[in-house]
Amino acid sequence: MSKFTTLSEEYRQSIEAELEGSLELLGDSPLRRDIGYVFSMGGKRVRPLLTIFASEAVGAFSQDVMQAAVAIEILHNFTLVHDDIMDKADTRRGKATVHITSGTNTAILVGDQMMALAYDALEKCSGRHLRAGLRIFNEGVKQVCDGQALDENLSKSVGYTMTDYIDMISRKTGALLMAAGELGALLGGGTTQEIGSLGKFGLNIGIAFQILDDMLDLEGDMERFGKPRGLDIMEKKRNFLFIKAQQSMDRKSFAVVDAAYRKNSVSADDVVAVHDAYRNAGIFEDGKKEVADYTERALANLEALTASAGKEMLVELADTLVKRRF
Amino acid sequence: MSKFTTLSEEYRQSIEAELEGSLELLGDSPLRRDIGYVFSMGGKRVRPLLTIFASEAVGAFSQDVMQAAVAIEILHNFTLVHDDIMDKADTRRGKATVHITSGTNTAILVGDQMMALAYDALEKCSGRHLRAGLRIFNEGVKQVCDGQALDENLSKSVGYTMTDYIDMISRKTGALLMAAGELGALLGGGTTQEIGSLGKFGLNIGIAFQILDDMLDLEGDMERFGKPRGLDIMEKKRNFLFIKAQQSMDRKSFAVVDAAYRKNSVSADDVVAVHDAYRNAGIFEDGKKEVADYTERALANLEALTASAGKEMLVELADTLVKRRF
Repeated sequence: MSKFTTLSEEYRQSIEAELEGSLELLGDSPLRRDIGYVFSMGGKRVRPLLTIFASEAVGAFSQDVMQAAVAIEILHNFTLVHDDIMDKADTRRGKATVHITSGTNTAILVGDQMMALAYDALEKCSGRHLRAGLRIFNEGVKQVCDGQALDENLSKSVGYTMTDYIDMISRKTGALLMAAGELGALLGGGTTQEIGSLGKFGLNIGIAFQILDDMLDLEGDMERFGKPRGLDIMEKKRNFLFIKAQQSMDRKSFAVVDAAYRKNSVSADDVVAVHDAYRNAGIFEDGKKEVADYTERALANLEALTASAGKEMLVELADTLVKRRF
Repeated sequence: MSKFTTLSEEYRQSIEAELEGSLELLGDSPLRRDIGYVFSMGGKRVRPLLTIFASEAVGAFSQDVMQAAVAIEILHNFTLVHDDIMDKADTRRGKATVHITSGTNTAILVGDQMMALAYDALEKCSGRHLRAGLRIFNEGVKQVCDGQALDENLSKSVGYTMTDYIDMISRKTGALLMAAGELGALLGGGTTQEIGSLGKFGLNIGIAFQILDDMLDLEGDMERFGKPRGLDIMEKKRNFLFIKAQQSMDRKSFAVVDAAYRKNSVSADDVVAVHDAYRNAGIFEDGKKEVADYTERALANLEALTASAGKEMLVELADTLVKRRF
């Protein structure tokens, strides 16, 4: 195993333990069991790893860094619970979502409570960085909500551009990874410039990650990703593939995609037809190029940092994210 | 006009202006218009007034106090937006609720964004009280979510007691008024004991307020309260009236109430029948006694404070809340 695999697995275990431990902050909350369930659904824990490695890239890891890392992961999980309600997603990572196990009302409250829990975890960071940390956190949350709202609106609106799409995913997916990088750099003792660079690293990684995610909606391994194929098409989301197709496909080829997006109910056959159309037009190659491009930008954001184990880990983290199997 | 009326009206105008101003913190958020709409729905602004008067009762009002007061009011409004989704309430204060005007998904996001905005407003408080303020805030949010969750569960469960009910409303309604009192006392420069007393004042006022609210569900002026009469019965909520009735009514008289709560769909006639049963059994008198009792406890929490204009205003505030017309 590589040093990255060993180290990130070690940290991941600590993160799981800290997440579990954070439930103590909920006392006798009737929502505790559901929140524990959300944590048990797992995940790659990319955001807290980013916070931890960012701290190591500019200075040192500490219990405060771990606290902020956990806060960011809780926040991310809150957004998933509410997103799953909005997207009517019945499963995540192959497990039933909270609104399925406990009802929509409880799922709304679980999300709300998790947001409070995230702030509570953040408050446990000792020292003088509380205000700056809180600012980063607030900005992250606001952007995520905005991004999700833009996604809601955009997924229904015609005639929006790749620029709008990139803006939307910068908020929806990029903002929390940006906050994760910034918080790690802040609590690791980084300079203002380093905090900025590691924030941008997170943002660019986030954009790459989301474009890849849009592609995996059609080309992903269903068992591995635990959700049905072509969900974006069924929900008529104007995702990266759709916009790219709209931009670059000739009118006749695009007609297949357009027809599916105009239907009231999209069938499995429609999904296959759209998938074929994208494949024939080379949309996935375009997507891969775009992912590589944003990953390059992310790596460029690290250039100014002096060489360190933390920096190496960040490069590996970026690499792992982009290498998600098709 | 009394000094209280004049002063609270002045402060209320400042609060409205600050709420409006807080929208600036949202930048170009696609949710800004909806959040502005929530603010424009109005309200008595009891919580921020409590924060302000609490600060004056232990020391001095300041811009920081106003900031915290506004943060608490935003937080309260976030809970209303999500509660209205859960309760399927179409109107509030005679106006369409956000999930009606903009859809449930947007309403979820509006609430989420308002929670972030509340924390953002709180962070704008300068000075050394940020961590303590954040703790009070976090505890308030967690308790409110717990209270709402208990309400969700309890409203369906049989065999729960008045103690469970008081615990539920202490969290659902009391916790934010408690936080409002504590924050005012903290930022006004109060001692630990004063912060505790003003928190308890808020908590007890909150309990009185909620019991009164349960009564107004049946005896309130529909036009003034902007919601249909008997909503709690239609939703089969085991509110104060129900539990008191269950405790104190004889079996035969309670059968009317019980029958309505067992129906799949409660009619307007059922509401009238339950209302009459409560009235004949003197449940509203019991309720009024309970409200008076918790108001007394609240006023007792102020006893240790030295006389001041702020203290007088708090007494008047308690009085106004309890005097809500039937």
